[in-house]
Amino acid sequence: MKLILNSPLDMHLHLRDGEMLEKIARHSAETFAGGVIMPNTVPPIDSISALTQYQDAIKNACGTHEFKAYMTVFFKEYSKKELLGLKEHIVGIKLYPAGATTNSKDGLEDIQSASSTLKLMEEMGIPLLVHGEQAQDFVMDREANFLPIYEKLAQSFPKLMIVMEHITTAGAVKLLDRYENLYATVTLQHLLITLDDVAGGLFAPHLFCKPIAKRDEDRDALLEVALKAHKKLSFGSDSAPHPRHKKECCGCAAGVFSAPIALMRLAQLFEKHDALDNLQAFVSDRAIENYKLKPIQKKVTLIKKDFLVPNDYEGVVPFDAGETLSWSLDSVVIS
Amino acid sequence: MKLILNSPLDMHLHLRDGEMLEKIARHSAETFAGGVIMPNTVPPIDSISALTQYQDAIKNACGTHEFKAYMTVFFKEYSKKELLGLKEHIVGIKLYPAGATTNSKDGLEDIQSASSTLKLMEEMGIPLLVHGEQAQDFVMDREANFLPIYEKLAQSFPKLMIVMEHITTAGAVKLLDRYENLYATVTLQHLLITLDDVAGGLFAPHLFCKPIAKRDEDRDALLEVALKAHKKLSFGSDSAPHPRHKKECCGCAAGVFSAPIALMRLAQLFEKHDALDNLQAFVSDRAIENYKLKPIQKKVTLIKKDFLVPNDYEGVVPFDAGETLSWSLDSVVIS
Repeated sequence: MKLILNSPLDMHLHLRDGEMLEKIARHSAETFAGGVIMPNTVPPIDSISALTQYQDAIKNACGTHEFKAYMTVFFKEYSKKELLGLKEHIVGIKLYPAGATTNSKDGLEDIQSASSTLKLMEEMGIPLLVHGEQAQDFVMDREANFLPIYEKLAQSFPKLMIVMEHITTAGAVKLLDRYENLYATVTLQHLLITLDDVAGGLFAPHLFCKPIAKRDEDRDALLEVALKAHKKLSFGSDSAPHPRHKKECCGCAAGVFSAPIALMRLAQLFEKHDALDNLQAFVSDRAIENYKLKPIQKKVTLIKKDFLVPNDYEGVVPFDAGETLSWSLDSVVIS
Repeated sequence: MKLILNSPLDMHLHLRDGEMLEKIARHSAETFAGGVIMPNTVPPIDSISALTQYQDAIKNACGTHEFKAYMTVFFKEYSKKELLGLKEHIVGIKLYPAGATTNSKDGLEDIQSASSTLKLMEEMGIPLLVHGEQAQDFVMDREANFLPIYEKLAQSFPKLMIVMEHITTAGAVKLLDRYENLYATVTLQHLLITLDDVAGGLFAPHLFCKPIAKRDEDRDALLEVALKAHKKLSFGSDSAPHPRHKKECCGCAAGVFSAPIALMRLAQLFEKHDALDNLQAFVSDRAIENYKLKPIQKKVTLIKKDFLVPNDYEGVVPFDAGETLSWSLDSVVIS
């Protein structure tokens, strides 16, 4: 049995820089036609020059694989002139908790102070991509406590496309249908795991990510909208590689590396729930429509055949390392 | 400034066996006059012969330190004859989630089926020590979901002394005042940390334990009753050593090793909250009264002087490793 995915897209991807970028970019580029590249390098990407330099480095690291890096910049106050310059280079602007929205109670005021930039983005049709967590709050409540800020943003800027990135709660899912201009991405791991998988038995460092995996009812709500390919939801892996020694150590870094195996694992999951027909929409069509993309025409064929996930990709341990998946990559054709 | 603690007791202690026992027992025996030794070795302690053998090994491992090992056995169905034989050797019988109470919904029925043993224990005045977690439930709910079973036990066996071991929730604290026959132990770490300290930033393997640390309001409720030396609460470290490679690895084992530094750290905590006067009761008097003990007369003097916690004790990383505490051990005198 074969499954063809046309131009699969990863709408939330960390490619790092330097040596790590060189190692891991091709593992996204092999199976995806493109991805939204998060700007949180050190320093963060926040100008055309930094952006084009990064984009070139990504292209280089992808080698012979055709892959469109949809770029983003870090949210800060931008002038109209700056935004006009940036617009053709970016798919959106990324707001991080370390920026305007951090620190619980004053998050909202901070967003108000950034309202001139948000207003300009709304007018110019530049999406706002948000890591929606109240960073100082209790780890299991951080996303839930941010939801009122999503609502306030959605109400204040009704024409602004706002993407709730890597959502992890049933509460965030509900907002998708409550506000026309709220969209979301969801990762592979949050469709599969809960905090029990991370810390219910032995602690599993390779499942430790931020936002942290939540409860069964959250995972189930996310899975439900993914399986039906909700019109405003896209796949975004949030794939975030760390070298093994930063995961299996005294202070384990947060981040799951799923990019190389994401499509095969999603095929297995969607097949299990009798929803394979919706996978194309979840991993590509919804994003193309909502973000108005014209992706590389890349035909990715998966085949129903055992695939043993490697223990690591050049020192980075992937999601499901050592597990056998029921789908393999068969071929990739560019047209 | 000096602080004298008479016969401090650790009412919940894991001393392991074999090489680990040899290494770590003396780190409890140095500052504590005695401790309640949990029976979950492999295989668990559940007979007089296993118990006396274990007690001898502990005595041996304590070397020149005087230390009373208050023994326990694993809960199973015991006959009256067996209990009569055990009674003089034990301070209580330990019920684990892997036993009668596991597996959420049917936990209660299982306890009913063990009621003949519980009835005998009640008649004979043998305390029941309970690890109160519904092991199959969501990790943050496991203790909360067990509370109704504590209530049922307390109601069904009103003369049975039931100790809620290593409590971690505000809900368990409330039960202390609701049922005369419910008692509790609490660890050092649960007076200090929440899940945020474990997994809010980088994951902290040396703070990872079961029951997992909960929310601020839980920590605060525990601290409140500890600081006032609640009449039915005792200190029980649940100190549970693992070699470093079992903590800083791919699947981190649960357990905090606090025994060697517990008294000094407690002194610092109680002093901070202006409750030093209650420390003697919390670490000794309440236990002596409630468990009817006649401990070794061991006068432990702490002195207000910086104490740099070692990075490890023979390969086991302690709580607060590398931190400087404000109290040191001054002297220990047996009378």
